[in-house]
Amino acid sequence: MRLSLQPSLDSSDYRYTHVLRTRFAETDAMGIIHHGSYPAYLEEARVAMLSAAGFPYAEVRSGPEGVDFAVLELYVRHRRPLRFDEEVQTHVTVGKLTRTTFQVGYLLEVGDEARATAVTVHGAVDADGRPSRMPGFLSELVGVGHQEP
Amino acid sequence: MRLSLQPSLDSSDYRYTHVLRTRFAETDAMGIIHHGSYPAYLEEARVAMLSAAGFPYAEVRSGPEGVDFAVLELYVRHRRPLRFDEEVQTHVTVGKLTRTTFQVGYLLEVGDEARATAVTVHGAVDADGRPSRMPGFLSELVGVGHQEP
Amino acid sequence: MRLSLQPSLDSSDYRYTHVLRTRFAETDAMGIIHHGSYPAYLEEARVAMLSAAGFPYAEVRSGPEGVDFAVLELYVRHRRPLRFDEEVQTHVTVGKLTRTTFQVGYLLEVGDEARATAVTVHGAVDADGRPSRMPGFLSELVGVGHQEP
Amino acid sequence: MRLSLQPSLDSSDYRYTHVLRTRFAETDAMGIIHHGSYPAYLEEARVAMLSAAGFPYAEVRSGPEGVDFAVLELYVRHRRPLRFDEEVQTHVTVGKLTRTTFQVGYLLEVGDEARATAVTVHGAVDADGRPSRMPGFLSELVGVGHQEP
Repeated sequence: MRLSLQPSLDSSDYRYTHVLRTRFAETDAMGIIHHGSYPAYLEEARVAMLSAAGFPYAEVRSGPEGVDFAVLELYVRHRRPLRFDEEVQTHVTVGKLTRTTFQVGYLLEVGDEARATAVTVHGAVDADGRPSRMPGFLSELVGVGHQEP
Repeated sequence: MRLSLQPSLDSSDYRYTHVLRTRFAETDAMGIIHHGSYPAYLEEARVAMLSAAGFPYAEVRSGPEGVDFAVLELYVRHRRPLRFDEEVQTHVTVGKLTRTTFQVGYLLEVGDEARATAVTVHGAVDADGRPSRMPGFLSELVGVGHQEP
Repeated sequence: MRLSLQPSLDSSDYRYTHVLRTRFAETDAMGIIHHGSYPAYLEEARVAMLSAAGFPYAEVRSGPEGVDFAVLELYVRHRRPLRFDEEVQTHVTVGKLTRTTFQVGYLLEVGDEARATAVTVHGAVDADGRPSRMPGFLSELVGVGHQEP
Repeated sequence: MRLSLQPSLDSSDYRYTHVLRTRFAETDAMGIIHHGSYPAYLEEARVAMLSAAGFPYAEVRSGPEGVDFAVLELYVRHRRPLRFDEEVQTHVTVGKLTRTTFQVGYLLEVGDEARATAVTVHGAVDADGRPSRMPGFLSELVGVGHQEP
């Protein structure tokens, strides 16, 4: 287990906030957002953060370095359920950058209430899925809100 | 973090094996099964294990005790990607039963190759989402293959 | 087949435009947005239109009339694929209101290029899934852009 | 609208039957299987039919002709909802083969009860998404159960 980032419950510790709205398609028969919908929320926030920082993921993938950020590990802690048609402040930050991996932390809030925290661990891979050199720009994204345990 | 189970890489440590086949709808533009598809795989295996043990989840939910098993935490470690139309041996076992939570461990294999391991932590909740007494039958499911760190 | 609405290719024929961004999770191994992702896009646009018109779907469902709009039929025509990280103008309009059903038409555009058109047919049902009286407010939504074949 | 196949309600009109089980992840807050889950069911049945006929889709895609079957149109009619943990007989058949497209019809049953019918229209495309010659083997799949309006 490479995962070691401890996601903060203080939204000011995060670098970027992406707002999304939960879909009815993402609910389940318990009347809440199904836990399987969260990885897509985290990814949407991650992609929005990269884009806001000037590194749109579509360009990162198709660019000269042509890297993908494979998901190596995923951890989600559900504190309170999300429900249909809620506006979710998805706070996201890059932390724990090594030569071959980086970790991203997340805090999902509705209003000021923490609903979930999460961490993903990524590795850079080339178009064939082989480990690749980490793009240099990632180090620029580590900073405000980067949490170490 | 309640999660503490260490999922074994030895399939004989697991109580039950559910076989599933990956769908094209679950692939992504990297040509592999998207990581967001795994929670549904784990859930499908969990439900199949309960059913095989004589406790179909649909009956557990609608029965006199009327409990749902809310997902409190989820952890997935991707060792090698899954690809379209692969047959996945999803090994599953119950471990770490407390008065209010239980943990489930998973090993996903194609042939003899480990593709992913995972752990989910669950709590029993009633129809309104409030914590509920853990059904007695869960203790019967802890046994073969239950791993403690 | 109740479906009879002919969705226009002229965005000015639609009542409401909802903007969404495609997710990486929604792509497939052909490198495009998987066709199974479209029903959720249509629903998101439908919900946004209701909300903008003053009838948030969450309130419609939990209100005194307590109705759901069951999907009876769905038709999607794919003209050109959507790709990852595209901003989609999802034009939506209500047409063909009968005593028991209504139809919704959709045009999905990126820039000025039509990517897909779609129609859904809905019936009002109560909390137990039985046909229910159509809420009166729906007739207010028929108007600009309502297309009849 | 190319779609013209009329899916039969008589299961003996279909060439192939694929059995699948609905997932909890596929339910929604109405307590039924969300309509957005059906395209993946249809695709799973289509892929199983091709595989049973000796033309696994993964090989069709990676073979010398390297074709994908793009979805051009999709129509689903919901007759009665599917629910969690139901075993669905998904009957599937190829009909309406032209030089550039083919149509597939579907009947989804639980027990002997029709839950949904559907039609998809496909075109052969190469790895770059350009229209391609229809593989010859498709004509072998048209036959038993092929419905014309």
